Amino acid sequence: MKAHNFYAGPGALPRSVLQKIESDLFSYKNSGVSVMELSHRSSEIVELIDETVEGFKRLLGLDEAWEVMLLQGGGTMQFLMVPMNLSQAGDLIEYADTGYWSQKAINEAKLCKRQVKVIASGADDNYYKLPIIDSTMTNESARYLHLCTNNTVVGTQFHDFPDMATPLVLDASSDILSYRMNLDKVACIYAHAQKNVGLAGMTFVAVRKKYIMDNSEMSQFLQYRTHIESKSNYHTPPVFSIYVANLMQKWLESEIGGVTAMEALNNEKAKLLYDAIDSAKKFRCPVPVKNRSKMNVLFTTGCEERDNKFVAFCKEKKIIGIAGHRSQKGLRASLYNAVTLENVKVLTEVISQFDAQH
Amino acid sequence: MKAHNFYAGPGALPRSVLQKIESDLFSYKNSGVSVMELSHRSSEIVELIDETVEGFKRLLGLDEAWEVMLLQGGGTMQFLMVPMNLSQAGDLIEYADTGYWSQKAINEAKLCKRQVKVIASGADDNYYKLPIIDSTMTNESARYLHLCTNNTVVGTQFHDFPDMATPLVLDASSDILSYRMNLDKVACIYAHAQKNVGLAGMTFVAVRKKYIMDNSEMSQFLQYRTHIESKSNYHTPPVFSIYVANLMQKWLESEIGGVTAMEALNNEKAKLLYDAIDSAKKFRCPVPVKNRSKMNVLFTTGCEERDNKFVAFCKEKKIIGIAGHRSQKGLRASLYNAVTLENVKVLTEVISQFDAQH
Repeated sequence: MKAHNFYAGPGALPRSVLQKIESDLFSYKNSGVSVMELSHRSSEIVELIDETVEGFKRLLGLDEAWEVMLLQGGGTMQFLMVPMNLSQAGDLIEYADTGYWSQKAINEAKLCKRQVKVIASGADDNYYKLPIIDSTMTNESARYLHLCTNNTVVGTQFHDFPDMATPLVLDASSDILSYRMNLDKVACIYAHAQKNVGLAGMTFVAVRKKYIMDNSEMSQFLQYRTHIESKSNYHTPPVFSIYVANLMQKWLESEIGGVTAMEALNNEKAKLLYDAIDSAKKFRCPVPVKNRSKMNVLFTTGCEERDNKFVAFCKEKKIIGIAGHRSQKGLRASLYNAVTLENVKVLTEVISQFDAQH
Repeated sequence: MKAHNFYAGPGALPRSVLQKIESDLFSYKNSGVSVMELSHRSSEIVELIDETVEGFKRLLGLDEAWEVMLLQGGGTMQFLMVPMNLSQAGDLIEYADTGYWSQKAINEAKLCKRQVKVIASGADDNYYKLPIIDSTMTNESARYLHLCTNNTVVGTQFHDFPDMATPLVLDASSDILSYRMNLDKVACIYAHAQKNVGLAGMTFVAVRKKYIMDNSEMSQFLQYRTHIESKSNYHTPPVFSIYVANLMQKWLESEIGGVTAMEALNNEKAKLLYDAIDSAKKFRCPVPVKNRSKMNVLFTTGCEERDNKFVAFCKEKKIIGIAGHRSQKGLRASLYNAVTLENVKVLTEVISQFDAQH
């Protein structure tokens, strides 16, 4: 029996994607070998990479001003590559501190010897509220303002982005392609694949060409230019993860109906779960309504022992991935694109049962 | 029909490994979800990582002096991480220039602002011969000497390592675990997975702890200490690639019989193919016998058009991956661990047929 998977990432994949992996497993496109056994220079894989890059451009509505790269190293490597490629030593770069992941990005940027300024922080609210960010807070000399669009650990999400002259850099690792994102003011957006778009091991990076600095004296491997010029094939790319990202794009477009349809479904899933939590007697969500994430729903009974009981209760019902982030405790259900409405309904029923019994 | 796969990497996987992937696909260890859908912090995946690290230690005979990391970024990222972690700015580090891949490593080391000295080069022989390296060539202040143990582009391989005081760093991407390697003088050995030990997207790095420098002012992500302390789980690791590496270890130990048995089989495969080439009238190998690689066998008819004809002839017989490296032309058959003796026999028969007909 398939479990109901609410892991915060890596997390659920659509059943039909797993079935396609199964049917391709021993021979990819009549090659007589698995997609895992083909050279990254073979025509099959070069086509796969190009098609996947084009798929991201299409789904995100990126025009020729943008370059897309499929890299390794996760969002974490971008904490380093973004400042190295979009600024130079000593430049001012701005960050919003929205908790765990933004802090990791800030620390790496500092180690890059940039002048890092945190212009807004949610620290006073334990990060359960997003800080207000307005155009008066930015400095016109700043290269960019970095935002983590969705914060998996504390369950917050920016539902719109600040309107300011400073270009934005978005770490969209946990909400990319979950809704139609407005990228008008964005210089760069990156996301690891393992939440909404594929498998751990591949990282999506899109950047507007004009923001890339000429830092040619630095490591060639760490330069965006290297990977752009080589069409994401400078060194062996994570082929199987790219293949799964490609299948996820096809699933999103042909089975879900595209990003707009995905957004509607994600709204429905999130509403269902938040409503169940808000109407339960023994559960509460620590995040104010306007900042709540549609991807990671935090909740708790307010008692560690009872939270643990709920995790065990879920396990009996084949619901997995419900424990909160290890830094945070509490409970968390992640509602990434591949989590179905059916999965969420099962979870809300279990919340009601537990609420009635305990 | 399964093709005979001689790609230079990514390349062949054992049939039984693909079958195991198939049987685990929808539920890994009774979790009710695929191994691709499990959190990297789940007990299943933490165990998988630990078991795979231990497997590498066991197969390579590494004692407690060593630390093993499973990273992303390929061998290419190690071109940068090795100098950053095993030396400091301005330090002398030595390299042997054995062609294409060693040059990429040399270039990255220079960009790290190290004092890079190439102590031996095969350039005068177009890299078809390995340069002689002896203890008089090294400087006692050098932090290490970097060798690419097997050179996929030109088909050469070090069958023993220089005996000198300077510790060695080995890029063993293309021959790791293909034979019993003597690591007595080695400070660090690294290898991407996609040739002998798994899938593109995972990189194996082993380092003797005492050689790691305290470069704590640099990027935390690029520090070996970060990944060692986090047991290869600092950020989301390439879980599926690690899973396949784990299956490859089990296959090597239980089906092949370990590294010694693998070495004997690889010797047999290489002898069979080199003998077929040497005894053919129309084919020749450009590499002198003593430097020939057992992993990548270079050969040519001496005529580009005829080489292309041979590639097409092979394709008809379901033999793939025979064209040489794009920088090199000619022909190349890669005999990584998962290539079977049967595959090699088929290729030698096709060589004989072509030799008789054309």
